[in-house]
Amino acid sequence: MATAGKVIKCKAAVAWEADSPLVIEEIEVAPPQKNEIRLKVIAASICLSDVYHMYKGKPKDGFPVVMGHEGAGIVESVGPGVTEFKPGDKVIPLYLSQCRDCKFCKNPKTNMCEKDCIIRTTIQSPSEIRFTCRSKPLLQFMRTGIFSEYTIKNKIALVKVHDDAQLDRVFLFGCGVSTGYGAAINNAKVEPGSVCAVFGLGAVGLSAVMGCKHAGASRIIAVDINEERFEKAKILGATDFVNPKLHQKPISEVLIEMTNGGVDYSVECVGQVDVMRSALESCIKGWGVSVIAGWTDLYDFSARPIQLIAGRTWKGTSFGGFKGKDDVPKLVLDHMAGRINLDVFVTHNMNLDQINEAIKMMMAGGW
Amino acid sequence: MATAGKVIKCKAAVAWEADSPLVIEEIEVAPPQKNEIRLKVIAASICLSDVYHMYKGKPKDGFPVVMGHEGAGIVESVGPGVTEFKPGDKVIPLYLSQCRDCKFCKNPKTNMCEKDCIIRTTIQSPSEIRFTCRSKPLLQFMRTGIFSEYTIKNKIALVKVHDDAQLDRVFLFGCGVSTGYGAAINNAKVEPGSVCAVFGLGAVGLSAVMGCKHAGASRIIAVDINEERFEKAKILGATDFVNPKLHQKPISEVLIEMTNGGVDYSVECVGQVDVMRSALESCIKGWGVSVIAGWTDLYDFSARPIQLIAGRTWKGTSFGGFKGKDDVPKLVLDHMAGRINLDVFVTHNMNLDQINEAIKMMMAGGW
Ligand SMILES: [Zn+2]
Ligand SMILES: [Zn+2]
Ligand SMILES: [Zn+2]
Ligand SMILES: [Zn+2]
Repeated sequence: MATAGKVIKCKAAVAWEADSPLVIEEIEVAPPQKNEIRLKVIAASICLSDVYHMYKGKPKDGFPVVMGHEGAGIVESVGPGVTEFKPGDKVIPLYLSQCRDCKFCKNPKTNMCEKDCIIRTTIQSPSEIRFTCRSKPLLQFMRTGIFSEYTIKNKIALVKVHDDAQLDRVFLFGCGVSTGYGAAINNAKVEPGSVCAVFGLGAVGLSAVMGCKHAGASRIIAVDINEERFEKAKILGATDFVNPKLHQKPISEVLIEMTNGGVDYSVECVGQVDVMRSALESCIKGWGVSVIAGWTDLYDFSARPIQLIAGRTWKGTSFGGFKGKDDVPKLVLDHMAGRINLDVFVTHNMNLDQINEAIKMMMAGGW
Repeated sequence: MATAGKVIKCKAAVAWEADSPLVIEEIEVAPPQKNEIRLKVIAASICLSDVYHMYKGKPKDGFPVVMGHEGAGIVESVGPGVTEFKPGDKVIPLYLSQCRDCKFCKNPKTNMCEKDCIIRTTIQSPSEIRFTCRSKPLLQFMRTGIFSEYTIKNKIALVKVHDDAQLDRVFLFGCGVSTGYGAAINNAKVEPGSVCAVFGLGAVGLSAVMGCKHAGASRIIAVDINEERFEKAKILGATDFVNPKLHQKPISEVLIEMTNGGVDYSVECVGQVDVMRSALESCIKGWGVSVIAGWTDLYDFSARPIQLIAGRTWKGTSFGGFKGKDDVPKLVLDHMAGRINLDVFVTHNMNLDQINEAIKMMMAGGW
């Protein structure tokens, strides 16, 4: 591309400080350095983790930052040492890296990556800064910063997908849909004929419903206090619908009665520790498995020991247990083959300029 | 036997009320009724659950009672409907039944039994009382009451073992040894070459060490504040020994440093919720599995959600995941073949008359 090797000036939504609206600014995106790829962003969405960072997490060294980690784009140029990507490739940023070299990447039991601690969790050092605005360095949230027309990714945290992939749909595999779908099929390992419950019907929860359905569950109980969400859950395979607000007794007791002892699998997609507990307690003794797919780091989750001693298993998921480079391309093929419905997740198409409005709409949905 | 069909008068240790020493009394044991077996007790030991019931649990309708649930005996006579047992059979009482008929018994994933709720957890009704003393009905703790020269068991909660079984050793399979051993091999499913940690080195913990060793663990870290217990742990296969009292930092950090990231499997054998948390936090992210084998119902266990979200699994065990009727006879054969060392668990041989002394010695060990 004509821009290769040059600084690109483009629009981005900048979070100058915590608890403040994003500001659309012109920023400079440096050329990709060693092992880096610069991409033109085609589609992105707001994830709860973005909002959480801006309003609840508020790490004091986490600003100014370009937010956003769920998206897709096209490679504009690559830095030295990059052979896996070339300009024009369709790509999805990974917030969980796959270096293929560490003891985690080499173990089929997990999608953790030792390098991920470096590329995601730590704050970028001055030498790693690629975004600037008004001469100030900008961080990239989750080393992604997708709320920009262009962004930079390390090669271990980017995956190439099929040339015919529909980027304004498959970008959803960058976070929420993979998390919920994989929570059901990879972490819970839902079996055919089983009874499942999904707590919370945001993007992660709806994807979990889809995962349970694809795994062959015979009954999928969708639980949410917002009944408007039941319609989409039904499209994706939910068979029963429960609004906890309409019941006097604890929701776990309601589910245990509905299922003659409890569900085989439950997935928590809310990120609240009391819901995590309910999800576990809704499981049948002996073999019930509950997976935490929601996120919070503010509180402990808890339960009575007898819950586990009686045979239940408590697990969690990061990115649905998918290894990004290995599995995201397969998910994209599943979408292309019509096996995964992504249309249902797209509620609004908005421009970067409208991002504060989009965040407001999301937060109004409850979080 | 000459006693068949008649009431047997024999000695038993009676707990007349909570927080009191046991009293050796002459009691009457009724003949076995439908589906019941009366057995002469040959060997028994005190389990923490017995002491817990007497001093901490203190259910107000749980007295007077004959305590004890870990033991072995010989069938004296059988009631109507019993074909699986005959006088002279060597048997081990099960505190967890296996009816072979319920949805739990039919599922290979669990050793829970639906009937168990009836035979163990509920208080015996007047029609189910078989022990009396001074004209007062006596309960059988865990429907066993093994601290008596004779006792009565329902046929779904008793297992016949090999005629050559050494009852004063294999009685240990009635509770603690099965629990710890199975926690490692059935619940944690320890894999060859793995790194394990066992928290607490009582009978359950020592058995967990043995289970890890038999499963092929390459490194077994034994954790206890009582260093006198390390010697037996070493005999059973422990390779590293850690006394948390000798470390400033949290024990999980110590173990994470020792193992370059955490253990593959940990087993909690103490029954304290803070130890349960440490055992989980000592596991490696990605695939670490922690099993709760200790018991308490007084408090919640808890942790930060990231612990599970990062790929750890939290489980528990009842009776080591063994189905009593299917598996206890196999454990007995393993002992007869020299594959399971039970001698190490026998510290003292005492008579029924000395039971209060034995309880004192046990409690002095810390609980
Ligand atoms: Zn996200
Ligand atoms: Zn890696
Ligand atoms: Zn016991
Ligand atoms: Zn059963």
